[in-house]
Amino acid sequence: MESLQATRIIVTGGTFDKHYDAIKGELTFKESHLPAVIEQARITVPVEIEVNQLIDSLQMKDSHRALVLNACRLAPEPTIVVVHGTDTMVETARVIGEAKLGKTVVFTGAMVPYSVQGSDALFNLGFALALARTQPADAYVAMNGRVFRWDNVRKDKAEGVFETLR
Amino acid sequence: MESLQATRIIVTGGTFDKHYDAIKGELTFKESHLPAVIEQARITVPVEIEVNQLIDSLQMKDSHRALVLNACRLAPEPTIVVVHGTDTMVETARVIGEAKLGKTVVFTGAMVPYSVQGSDALFNLGFALALARTQPADAYVAMNGRVFRWDNVRKDKAEGVFETLR
Amino acid sequence: MESLQATRIIVTGGTFDKHYDAIKGELTFKESHLPAVIEQARITVPVEIEVNQLIDSLQMKDSHRALVLNACRLAPEPTIVVVHGTDTMVETARVIGEAKLGKTVVFTGAMVPYSVQGSDALFNLGFALALARTQPADAYVAMNGRVFRWDNVRKDKAEGVFETLR
Amino acid sequence: MESLQATRIIVTGGTFDKHYDAIKGELTFKESHLPAVIEQARITVPVEIEVNQLIDSLQMKDSHRALVLNACRLAPEPTIVVVHGTDTMVETARVIGEAKLGKTVVFTGAMVPYSVQGSDALFNLGFALALARTQPADAYVAMNGRVFRWDNVRKDKAEGVFETLR
Repeated sequence: MESLQATRIIVTGGTFDKHYDAIKGELTFKESHLPAVIEQARITVPVEIEVNQLIDSLQMKDSHRALVLNACRLAPEPTIVVVHGTDTMVETARVIGEAKLGKTVVFTGAMVPYSVQGSDALFNLGFALALARTQPADAYVAMNGRVFRWDNVRKDKAEGVFETLR
Repeated sequence: MESLQATRIIVTGGTFDKHYDAIKGELTFKESHLPAVIEQARITVPVEIEVNQLIDSLQMKDSHRALVLNACRLAPEPTIVVVHGTDTMVETARVIGEAKLGKTVVFTGAMVPYSVQGSDALFNLGFALALARTQPADAYVAMNGRVFRWDNVRKDKAEGVFETLR
Repeated sequence: MESLQATRIIVTGGTFDKHYDAIKGELTFKESHLPAVIEQARITVPVEIEVNQLIDSLQMKDSHRALVLNACRLAPEPTIVVVHGTDTMVETARVIGEAKLGKTVVFTGAMVPYSVQGSDALFNLGFALALARTQPADAYVAMNGRVFRWDNVRKDKAEGVFETLR
Repeated sequence: MESLQATRIIVTGGTFDKHYDAIKGELTFKESHLPAVIEQARITVPVEIEVNQLIDSLQMKDSHRALVLNACRLAPEPTIVVVHGTDTMVETARVIGEAKLGKTVVFTGAMVPYSVQGSDALFNLGFALALARTQPADAYVAMNGRVFRWDNVRKDKAEGVFETLR
């Protein structure tokens, strides 16, 4: 049921990875928190962290999504977690899903940054990693205890939750 | 692929749920943290929290394990996460596994309490919930990114990690 | 040396009290964290919390500073801590200092919000409370281990530190 | 009113500095948290951290208190904060107070470890540092918003608070 093959974690930024800049007085990006998160989670399977970009997903254009697609395509691992901003996670998941890579790619993120008290980041990462390592090859969105196939999900921005299209 | 059926979370105590008692100056049990954890995780699927017992798993006897078995048997939900101390998690998982309940029961816990900085609790809960909601009926141990069937797992107490028997 | 007279804590907002809004995806104000902070600090002297306003100090105008002055003037307690944004803390302290109220009024705040990991908020509040309860009547700015009289302090915004004028 | 002379922080252990050992499953001592605490507090005055010992204050004997006295005596700084376990903080403060060192020595600690959620450690350190840098030479106990002279303080262990003797 379980192998010790590595999972790749592709980091793109998003709320999950935001950092408080005390001089600017705002949330921004610095270094990714993912190495610290992986250590905190005490993960005992091999993971490869790849910082692909550090960007707010509202600022993602096609060229940014192409970078994620390329990283997924080049990854030697058959299972991938993509840490992504929630606002356009669905759009990037669609790009990966339509590419039919033959890999399991699970998108996740956070509604509250890892660096802020009461964050859902660690929960979502655990949830996504389990799915990446057990689900059949395809692209998924996994947030706050629900998992969706890439072609049947949307974000309700007013409520801050993901839901099926139909 | 995904349903909105509820998952039951059966709480038994363990390191996950320990609380610092400032008067006694030690980690002990008070109320379960699970309701706060579920809120922090912003879970959007229905979960039922059942505080079965609050106990260090080193103090668990057959009678305590019988309580867990009974709770799993009586649960109307087909998927269950059991939050359990790591030291005897394998023993309790065996009791549930041998009972062949026809439900998916995933045991998890934490190496560092939820209430302590740098805890793995939230990650493990997310990891376990994903497995409970997607794996076939059986009993599993899911910790720190690895999942084991109940009859092929042991805890290496010196290293604080779970591993297969063979 | 020490009395059990109450100290008033006048809350005006600022970085100290910012809260992450998961729907908007930004730091904003909701309810003040001060009641939770006081509980966490396990303070054993009487304190009265007064939420005067919840505002970013860059947005403070004379009318906002007049509200703080009025609150200090009306306070029955002889010792006051004002929780304030750092950007214009010096300007408000000057208003209080020039009014010569005959009370000890200590301004403090935070460079990192209380709700963000690694915050200096709790340290600064402890530092300010000690000064409020022991220093002679006047207005002071107390941040990150240094205390300044209201007429000899400025914020170096590039470095995020307070320093004397001369 | 304020100088930039350094303050020495003498670390002796106690609840303040306890660390969760995930393998042993208990709170114990490892390295002192004080360097991290000082960084978090963004302290802008010079401080010298001296790890004198890392011990539960219930285990302190006369020989341990002699080490603290010696460190205070040898310190080139005129102002000192001693981070100490709360159970016998009063006894060690008495040793320092009776020695009449001509320095301001402020004892503080925590009811909840720095490494546990909801800790009072940072607040108490800020409170103690302010007193060390402003009060006349003598020995003091400063906890949870109250300050006591060394010869008029006791800990009420049932309530977990400090109070005057008379």
